[in-house]
Amino acid sequence: MVNRQASAPLLANEDPRDSFDDQERELLMQESRKQISRERRRMCLCLGLAVVLASAAAITTTYLLTKSTTTFTPARNRNVIMMVSDGFGPASQTYGRSYWQYLNNQTEGVKTSLDEILIGASRTRSSDSLVTDSAAGATAFSCAMKSYNAAIGVDPNGDPCGTVLESAKQNGMLTGLVVTSRVTHATPAAFSAHVVHRDMEADIAVQQIGDYPLGRQVDLMLGGGRCFFLPNTTEGSCRLDDRDLIKESKGYGWSNVVFNQAEFKELLEKNDHTLPLPTMGLFHPSHMNFNIDRDRDLEPALNEMATVALRTLKKRSVNGEGFFLMIEGSRIDMGAHNNDPVAHVHEILEYHKTIQVVRDFVANNPDTIMISTSDHETGGFTLGLQPDPNTYPDYLWRPEVIERAKASTEILTRDLILFHTSNKDIQGQGSRRRQTHDFVQKEILEKGLGITDASEDEIEYLSNAEAIPNDILRFLGHAISRRANLGWTTMGHTGVDVNLYAASSVQNGNRILDRLRGNHENTEIGDYMSWYLQLDLPSITDKLVKTADKWFKPKPKFATAAFSHSLHEETGH
Amino acid sequence: MVNRQASAPLLANEDPRDSFDDQERELLMQESRKQISRERRRMCLCLGLAVVLASAAAITTTYLLTKSTTTFTPARNRNVIMMVSDGFGPASQTYGRSYWQYLNNQTEGVKTSLDEILIGASRTRSSDSLVTDSAAGATAFSCAMKSYNAAIGVDPNGDPCGTVLESAKQNGMLTGLVVTSRVTHATPAAFSAHVVHRDMEADIAVQQIGDYPLGRQVDLMLGGGRCFFLPNTTEGSCRLDDRDLIKESKGYGWSNVVFNQAEFKELLEKNDHTLPLPTMGLFHPSHMNFNIDRDRDLEPALNEMATVALRTLKKRSVNGEGFFLMIEGSRIDMGAHNNDPVAHVHEILEYHKTIQVVRDFVANNPDTIMISTSDHETGGFTLGLQPDPNTYPDYLWRPEVIERAKASTEILTRDLILFHTSNKDIQGQGSRRRQTHDFVQKEILEKGLGITDASEDEIEYLSNAEAIPNDILRFLGHAISRRANLGWTTMGHTGVDVNLYAASSVQNGNRILDRLRGNHENTEIGDYMSWYLQLDLPSITDKLVKTADKWFKPKPKFATAAFSHSLHEETGH
Repeated sequence: MVNRQASAPLLANEDPRDSFDDQERELLMQESRKQISRERRRMCLCLGLAVVLASAAAITTTYLLTKSTTTFTPARNRNVIMMVSDGFGPASQTYGRSYWQYLNNQTEGVKTSLDEILIGASRTRSSDSLVTDSAAGATAFSCAMKSYNAAIGVDPNGDPCGTVLESAKQNGMLTGLVVTSRVTHATPAAFSAHVVHRDMEADIAVQQIGDYPLGRQVDLMLGGGRCFFLPNTTEGSCRLDDRDLIKESKGYGWSNVVFNQAEFKELLEKNDHTLPLPTMGLFHPSHMNFNIDRDRDLEPALNEMATVALRTLKKRSVNGEGFFLMIEGSRIDMGAHNNDPVAHVHEILEYHKTIQVVRDFVANNPDTIMISTSDHETGGFTLGLQPDPNTYPDYLWRPEVIERAKASTEILTRDLILFHTSNKDIQGQGSRRRQTHDFVQKEILEKGLGITDASEDEIEYLSNAEAIPNDILRFLGHAISRRANLGWTTMGHTGVDVNLYAASSVQNGNRILDRLRGNHENTEIGDYMSWYLQLDLPSITDKLVKTADKWFKPKPKFATAAFSHSLHEETGH
Repeated sequence: MVNRQASAPLLANEDPRDSFDDQERELLMQESRKQISRERRRMCLCLGLAVVLASAAAITTTYLLTKSTTTFTPARNRNVIMMVSDGFGPASQTYGRSYWQYLNNQTEGVKTSLDEILIGASRTRSSDSLVTDSAAGATAFSCAMKSYNAAIGVDPNGDPCGTVLESAKQNGMLTGLVVTSRVTHATPAAFSAHVVHRDMEADIAVQQIGDYPLGRQVDLMLGGGRCFFLPNTTEGSCRLDDRDLIKESKGYGWSNVVFNQAEFKELLEKNDHTLPLPTMGLFHPSHMNFNIDRDRDLEPALNEMATVALRTLKKRSVNGEGFFLMIEGSRIDMGAHNNDPVAHVHEILEYHKTIQVVRDFVANNPDTIMISTSDHETGGFTLGLQPDPNTYPDYLWRPEVIERAKASTEILTRDLILFHTSNKDIQGQGSRRRQTHDFVQKEILEKGLGITDASEDEIEYLSNAEAIPNDILRFLGHAISRRANLGWTTMGHTGVDVNLYAASSVQNGNRILDRLRGNHENTEIGDYMSWYLQLDLPSITDKLVKTADKWFKPKPKFATAAFSHSLHEETGH
């Protein structure tokens, strides 16, 4: 296992923005010098003293040229935007592109905002399995270190490891997290907290507001997950204790906390369309809604949050601090966990939109790098299916089936369960049965999923008021997937390499991305960000480990292999 | 739909090997000239005449430098090796790497020969479906054109299109095809023949020997597929007519034809370890055996055939003709069609070995480019599975299960059917049942697949002498896949983008590969080869179309959409 934490792989006083082109420049300059020198010798035969002077000129020129390539002083602020498309494997990108082409009547040659910046792939296995979860996946990016499944900002032994977000903050940069899951969920947590198991979200929230040795590390935090910040005396709290983290957070500077779209917009309007820092936006008690189900008056879209975050971090970086911002399309993963091709593709389309927002920002702001990759694939999702083992499969899948669907299976499952619950009051078995049949057929299958050819067997299955929610969820997902000829092999994760995308506005074009091209361990993405921002993760780790006995809950001594695999069925791992 | 055939996208007299670095060089040279000029002006104040001379020197130098970058004359022979890993999606590469790391006790950081040269991805859809077959997939490479599923070297209308192999040959280059399927199968066929449906393999063989307007286009052809070259009067022929193509081929120069490893070695020894050209090696009546089942005394491995092909084409290129060679890991696809993770991974390991052979050749021979990609994914293969819908899936898969297997499910299915057939003669129902049970348990499951925990249900299923071969095949594949926690969603293809790999020995390093980096349509790979070799595909198309009424069997007038989807269950599409 590779268990190293990246320190800056270059000399401390060397700037990555100088070095990337140096070798090539040097080769060309050597060539130039050689030619100049050769030319000089030839002319020497006839030009005497003049050539001595010419030589002096040439030497001075060469000296100046060489010097100019190594003493380049960069602007202070450099920005890194790390984008994570959670649970988004290669098939999901092909799916999103083809569906988008289909919707927009585009030919196959038209690329999405992601396709244009493909540079390689990321290997995703964790320290204890060939198939990672999101916690180990995000820790690989944040600590540049492989760890065990369920690990949040801790190493394979369960000890805290410094993250790129923390090290960026210690270097004086601004920091932000923009997600659509709970902000306490695995990916954002692994950048901003240290716990031995991802389910310790109550502890994650405590650290995120700043109650741990490093103090507040996050300047801007937008997403869902309000429930872990509210005391157990409040309705909808997920905490077991009565700590009111919203109240406590004020002590760490969080004087701006918004809970919905209206408050968000008000705060923006008061501040010239940016946010004051720090600001916390917790738009849902748990995960934000899938984009296809989202009420635009209650929750902002990922691309809207990203736009505001970029504008804010740029404006607040008045002294050239620069920023580190992590943006996650968190629920791409959850659509796939549900085997729901509809929620999945709408999350992907929103992620594409967000990518375009970020790419535009990169294009218009110097010394900015954006990286987009996934922590892992989810669902064992495939663009093809053999619905009947006795018939040779068709080579096709059907975007038109997906287009007809208008809601996620998550919402439809909730609606169906609510119907079953309230329908218990209807008098008369026949009448109840008829109404259930109608509701399942018309509301769930036709209006919800666009399925007009449901069989009586399917309607009967969904009419069973005793069905387990997860079974309904899977049933609905597979009902539409089968019609679209799309396949799934699991409601969990798989181990395929994921795509790696990047864009840069660092001077001299894309050459700084060269060391990120090709096939990499996910930890190397953390290494790369560390290198570009000249971070020092080990020094953060030192601070965290030295004080650990005062704040850190260690891995239980009885922890076995099962510890890191104790993932439950709540969607999204 | 994009239905264009690539002509050379550069000016005819421009050499791709000159152009790739020109822009960057020019920028640097401009900078150099500016600095020289600035320096010159400053020194002018004190150096008078001497500086005029220095200026003259600098100008001359600049002129010479500029000239030297644009009049570079390349060596004549340039080589392209196109490698196709048929039916090899992203998950298959992760699978092959992790399995290889596991076998060799390597850490996760160790890359395979392919990982080191990842440069992008290829989009695979055909002109009539989001999921391609191998025929349209190979035609995209060979004609640089999208066509319909089942199309072999023909455009969407069913008219012949010139291929890179043919155009290379017309330009005086040497050509070769090295595969493990029948040489008449889709991929090699699409480079060397033109038929409206892939199943017309008897016609493909006719064209491959040279019996069509262009004459013999292939100099070296190694693989399986003897049966389509033998008259129907011969045992094991697949032809419906009595044409003896081996005999006929002599008229087109094929005086060297070998049928097995011994003849192959003898021919090699007689010719200083190379082959005379043309040579045809048809090592199996149909597809060559899976590598895991291969009898080393009867059939060469893919990497051995590739080694010989490269050595031969290099040696025979005495006048600097250069060569175009297509090498296919044909049966990676068929392992996946069978949902057999064992055959699949052993084909992948052999492909990796072959990649190393080709990369070594590239490294040691100038002006050579190798490209490796897949036509499509097969199997909907995923590195993770939820075997029980009622239990949250484990995040893992198990290479140790695959390691215990010693044969492909294809061979084991054949063995089982042979056993059932001969077992009919055994007297006594009880004795017959006992012997069948033992054979299934010991020979098929334990010795064959390394499965020692077979249930009685499994043994009973396989003991049924009436089972359909394809059902046995799938049953065996799924029996081991389930134990390894690997998933499949189809015995056909899926639509995911596939990985794109390349290496180059063209002077100035990898910059010539820059235009191939990123995400591309599969047709652009054809465009790229055309560009690098300065081919003229449209002129070949013209020749073929003009004479079509003399030799070409057009698409039936009654052909509907179903025509291109009339794929049958024979493994490998």
